[in-house]
Amino acid sequence: MAPGVAAPVKPLTMADVLAASQPSDWRPLDPENTLYLELATGRVVIELKPAFAPHHTANIKALVREGYFDGLAVLRVQDNYVVQWGDPDADDKDKQRPVKKAQRTLTAEFTIALTQDLPFTRLPDADGYAPEVGFSDGFPAARDPKTGRAWLAHCYGMVGVGRDNDPDSGGGTELYAVIGNAPRHLDRNITLVGRVVQGIELLSALPRGTGALGFYEKPQQRVPIQSVRLAADVSARTNLEVLRTDTSTFTALVASRRNRQDNWYKVPAGYVELCNVPLVVRPATRR
Amino acid sequence: MAPGVAAPVKPLTMADVLAASQPSDWRPLDPENTLYLELATGRVVIELKPAFAPHHTANIKALVREGYFDGLAVLRVQDNYVVQWGDPDADDKDKQRPVKKAQRTLTAEFTIALTQDLPFTRLPDADGYAPEVGFSDGFPAARDPKTGRAWLAHCYGMVGVGRDNDPDSGGGTELYAVIGNAPRHLDRNITLVGRVVQGIELLSALPRGTGALGFYEKPQQRVPIQSVRLAADVSARTNLEVLRTDTSTFTALVASRRNRQDNWYKVPAGYVELCNVPLVVRPATRR
Repeated sequence: MAPGVAAPVKPLTMADVLAASQPSDWRPLDPENTLYLELATGRVVIELKPAFAPHHTANIKALVREGYFDGLAVLRVQDNYVVQWGDPDADDKDKQRPVKKAQRTLTAEFTIALTQDLPFTRLPDADGYAPEVGFSDGFPAARDPKTGRAWLAHCYGMVGVGRDNDPDSGGGTELYAVIGNAPRHLDRNITLVGRVVQGIELLSALPRGTGALGFYEKPQQRVPIQSVRLAADVSARTNLEVLRTDTSTFTALVASRRNRQDNWYKVPAGYVELCNVPLVVRPATRR
Repeated sequence: MAPGVAAPVKPLTMADVLAASQPSDWRPLDPENTLYLELATGRVVIELKPAFAPHHTANIKALVREGYFDGLAVLRVQDNYVVQWGDPDADDKDKQRPVKKAQRTLTAEFTIALTQDLPFTRLPDADGYAPEVGFSDGFPAARDPKTGRAWLAHCYGMVGVGRDNDPDSGGGTELYAVIGNAPRHLDRNITLVGRVVQGIELLSALPRGTGALGFYEKPQQRVPIQSVRLAADVSARTNLEVLRTDTSTFTALVASRRNRQDNWYKVPAGYVELCNVPLVVRPATRR
């Protein structure tokens, strides 16, 4: 090769990118912001994201620590949309699960102020639902410099707080996870608090409810929740690490998904939609 | 109201739009282009779309009519991606299900020539994966006036033809349905032939495979296919009708989804992504 001529950059597949990743490309889950939703079929691991919903995430942790969810159930599985869990008797004041020190409802946290120090790895492509989209510490997010607001995006596996028509009617006693095509029209309309990082298939493969909005019609169809615990309070932890989204490795991963280099692909898309960027999780390695 | 002042147009919800629809807004399924995939749990109804893949759809009908799929199985369920069915012994020349008069492989039909007479109701919004997107006779589709090509889009429930790395290695003996966030990067890389119009939950709620790419690792995990039949050959039909996509009713439906008018929504999106437009199906009414 002639001096001064750069070697051609070999296009990489995602497998190439991950194989070349360094330990510093990964971050462990914070046990203080990780929930274990325990079903008879196994454990669903949820990472909370307090930066986008400080009051709701704190309240969910308070609910978890007072055992609020233990013995409640998955109530709703709507195909191509959401799985929702909470109290079957929420609407019955005499039978509903009591809330102790936590709050039942909170002021909505649909968006947050966009500050200089909000981590944000912007995607190179345009998005239909927001002026700018990308990733904030491993979570799909959007921001609008004009309004000065930022928010999490409703991608597959994201977890949010159910509410009624009143924006301030949710608080965390009813939670949902996205199990279908990204319902991005929910963005800025409901408080997102985190995402499922392992075990989504324990929710997404549940039988669909046949009632309105996918609610189970018969009590016996509901899927019991054994418990929800904060990882910090559990000795038998699921130790995972998540690919950081503020590294050159992640930038290379996005490039590998915009134009697939795998032999199978014949026409590169030249684009990747926010929710089609994989947020990779693996068992934690010893450091 | 003063003369000459138009009455304000009341913003409609999707429920309003559908309630006001006329019989002419709906079309029946064509029994010659409708498949019934029969599982122990029920019937999956698939509408074929010959205009976008004439040879593959004809070949699938030929395979169905020679009983090719009867007794085969769902082999792969990959979370947030696809369900795939076909012959567990496809790679074993001694044991594989024989193909009689149909073809095992065909030349790829990833795109078709964009002609004047291709029905196309264009969406008002931009799309990341294609210059123009919309609906062709009830199917999500894309077109590129520059290249003069059109193609079906990988939305939830779309059905395509599995292939190996060779573009011409598929023919319809192995089919898949999308059960996750729209994998639009597959567009123009694989032949789409139709979509599931009823019963997708019989596929999307199946246990996920734990092998590579979501393949079931043990033969007993596979989900047996009782039969696949063309509706034209079946007396006990599932009579459905599908909302047409070339009417003012459909235009109003798209508008109702771009900016939700339901009381629950607080911030209208001002956008609807192609695969978030509902393609509505209902039991056929007597005419």
